[in-house]
Amino acid sequence: MASYEAHRATVEDALSGLFVDAWPARFGEVLRYPLQTGGKRVRPVLCLTACEALGADPASAVPAALAVELVHTYSLVHDDLPCMDDDDERRGKPTVHRAYDEGSAVLCGDALLTEAFRVVLGGPQGGDAKVRMVQRLSDAAGYRGMVGGQAADVGLGGPVTDIDTLLALHRGKTGALLAASAVLGGMAAGATERQLDALERYGQAVGLAFQLADDVLDAEEDAGDDGPPSYVKLLGIDETQRRAARLRDDALAAAGALPQPAGLEAIARFVVDRQH
Amino acid sequence: MASYEAHRATVEDALSGLFVDAWPARFGEVLRYPLQTGGKRVRPVLCLTACEALGADPASAVPAALAVELVHTYSLVHDDLPCMDDDDERRGKPTVHRAYDEGSAVLCGDALLTEAFRVVLGGPQGGDAKVRMVQRLSDAAGYRGMVGGQAADVGLGGPVTDIDTLLALHRGKTGALLAASAVLGGMAAGATERQLDALERYGQAVGLAFQLADDVLDAEEDAGDDGPPSYVKLLGIDETQRRAARLRDDALAAAGALPQPAGLEAIARFVVDRQH
Repeated sequence: MASYEAHRATVEDALSGLFVDAWPARFGEVLRYPLQTGGKRVRPVLCLTACEALGADPASAVPAALAVELVHTYSLVHDDLPCMDDDDERRGKPTVHRAYDEGSAVLCGDALLTEAFRVVLGGPQGGDAKVRMVQRLSDAAGYRGMVGGQAADVGLGGPVTDIDTLLALHRGKTGALLAASAVLGGMAAGATERQLDALERYGQAVGLAFQLADDVLDAEEDAGDDGPPSYVKLLGIDETQRRAARLRDDALAAAGALPQPAGLEAIARFVVDRQH
Repeated sequence: MASYEAHRATVEDALSGLFVDAWPARFGEVLRYPLQTGGKRVRPVLCLTACEALGADPASAVPAALAVELVHTYSLVHDDLPCMDDDDERRGKPTVHRAYDEGSAVLCGDALLTEAFRVVLGGPQGGDAKVRMVQRLSDAAGYRGMVGGQAADVGLGGPVTDIDTLLALHRGKTGALLAASAVLGGMAAGATERQLDALERYGQAVGLAFQLADDVLDAEEDAGDDGPPSYVKLLGIDETQRRAARLRDDALAAAGALPQPAGLEAIARFVVDRQH
């Protein structure tokens, strides 16, 4: 079984080959810039690890892994725009619209998203499997998933004052793509419906646990009342931690139904128990 | 053979069923807003007409037609943003970022684009054909096509001072999606490689003719020297008109190789000879 770091190195290597042929050449530079982040690459590693959990060669899931990372990266580029979160830096580097300009950042995100739907087709799977993968990627990324959650997050659903609305927001904003990362890895491996269900449950639980753990970390860093609605504000820190631990256990139980669950189990533990 | 208006009515009907289940509900409203334009729907009608030119039922190309219209519409929503063309109105209605706000307009475009890759899967074709359609849509919409052309248009390739660069810009910005509209209609109909080549030549010629005719119309309305680079500025109005007519004839010749070319021929004539 490959380690998290080995999978991450595979992802970095594959990402470095993207957009080298872009025209105009300077646009290629803009497109590659947000992909060189030194990020944790949780989604693509999850995708490769899910493929491996089924006993398949993770190489067959590399195209799907790239696709989910492209979708994640585009969402950050657009999220950072002045009309969204207005962030000047990400991981210590100027954001795309600061390093270049806003128009380039909009087009950059557009191109990364579009390329995800080409890249996901690059594996050894048959046509019907690839069609399912495209459909799942669109569901997770679009208005039924990530963008719907972001729309709720920018206030298009009104203020978020109860736990059910916050859960729905996060199931879209972060949960949908994390769950799809696991499920796409399974689809790439030719998983049975039952195994895909287990990966779905695993991914949903890890996605939500990720958000709860994030809220706990944010609350420990800054006890202020401003900022977005959070589980800690609605539930308190102890109940948020209890729920995150319960979700981790749900994820571990779901992974346990798969042939080689060790990698997925390690990710579920890492997501909840991480310190940053 | 169905008329342009009959195809257009089919497109309007199919578009009206999109995003009715969106959450938050107000986001659904934002998503439907730019689709209700009263536009000519050239791309989806071209797609349906190409399918029909092969003797197939155009109903099998409705999903592809919706997909190209979603891609076109998202590109307008993002193009209109203050950091791009900064347009307040489109077809006499406030643009999305004016009717709502900039963040909503960014997310709206993102969701329309993402949905295109789900919608295109909705036809009766087999998995392998659908995979080709997704790949072609991504090529046409992304950095190899439309977004690459837009990147050149916002200056990422430097100033456009020669005809070859202007041609490359427009092959991307408008030509790629118009050509893909014809080719996707052919793929939906199960066209042979030879027929797809004819549709490709037809679509490339019509796409470029469309741009040349636009430049002529713009020059007749406003003889000023400001505004973007244009064929009229580089070639003069007479040579631009001659080239547009030659491209129309290329398109007619390419369409002539297909079983039922009348609809495609009418569109090629309309594009070059239109008065607005």
